[in-house]
Amino acid sequence: MRDDRGRTRGWQRLSTTLTHRGPYFELRLDDVVRPDGSRGTYEHVVSRGGVTVLAVDDDGGVVLTRQWIYTHGVVQWRLPSGGIDPTDGNAESAARRELAEETGLQAARWCRIGKVSGADSFTNHVDHVFLAADLTEGTAARQAGEADLEVSRLPFENAVDLVLSGQMSHAASAYAILVAAASRTRR
Amino acid sequence: MRDDRGRTRGWQRLSTTLTHRGPYFELRLDDVVRPDGSRGTYEHVVSRGGVTVLAVDDDGGVVLTRQWIYTHGVVQWRLPSGGIDPTDGNAESAARRELAEETGLQAARWCRIGKVSGADSFTNHVDHVFLAADLTEGTAARQAGEADLEVSRLPFENAVDLVLSGQMSHAASAYAILVAAASRTRR
Repeated sequence: MRDDRGRTRGWQRLSTTLTHRGPYFELRLDDVVRPDGSRGTYEHVVSRGGVTVLAVDDDGGVVLTRQWIYTHGVVQWRLPSGGIDPTDGNAESAARRELAEETGLQAARWCRIGKVSGADSFTNHVDHVFLAADLTEGTAARQAGEADLEVSRLPFENAVDLVLSGQMSHAASAYAILVAAASRTRR
Repeated sequence: MRDDRGRTRGWQRLSTTLTHRGPYFELRLDDVVRPDGSRGTYEHVVSRGGVTVLAVDDDGGVVLTRQWIYTHGVVQWRLPSGGIDPTDGNAESAARRELAEETGLQAARWCRIGKVSGADSFTNHVDHVFLAADLTEGTAARQAGEADLEVSRLPFENAVDLVLSGQMSHAASAYAILVAAASRTRR
């Protein structure tokens, strides 16, 4: 499909059908026109997305979690992270809630690092990534699925090592740490 | 749920039911025991995962693509990337195929950078990330959904800028470029 200036256009959605609604995501089947002009269907998962928090203490320590990740069937290192709830309002509110729930920490300073998305052949899921600083301690309030979650702190360089040695494959966590590392190098 | 040494364990899957099978993923509903010992269900998407290729030419140029990403409804920069097909055999074969299909390039040298996963609250999708070098030109063979795909090359530092300025949010692409940047800094 080409527009009036001869450029190839992207996909067009003609209609969408909700085929399944679960508590955390919807499954949709769309009737589409592909970029080459052919008709087809596109099946995809609609999600509210998630948040990930690079919380750094006054000594430069990074707050990390370790927990069993159900979908991968292993224990993984990552930054505090979780899904956006319908009641969160926006991504930063979700980030504040997730940090507090998983670690008990409150942060006085918040700054948006960016966002990443993966599996985007079938989902619109976006992970919004924040830097949190000026931390104060509080009490964690973990969900039933997070009872095994362990919180620890590592010097920033050790967190970078976990990413570069392949021990932290959670995309938004790796992104947050590597962006922070690149920013330090460039300063 | 605690094991015999008193440690909290992760999730346990008691049974799984296939509730939907599409061409690219399955939807499953599992009967589970959560880490706190409570019973529940876990709905998740089973995917073959994908591959992403950081292809670098002899002058240090990085091969980039721009295309309409259906699930996000925008044109995005990224590295050559795509889903693993049932016929691919393994992730590196899929990476060779995707690079050739999208860009026409063949690479004589392949090296695994790592893997990342996002949206892992609801999918096991993993993106396997490779470095490809010693490139030779060939002819691209794009799929119907990729007719709008544009290929270009940028100096490595400009690719890093695209990530750090928030213009490349594709998780595996950002990860590949930032890992390569961190490795160069540390050398």
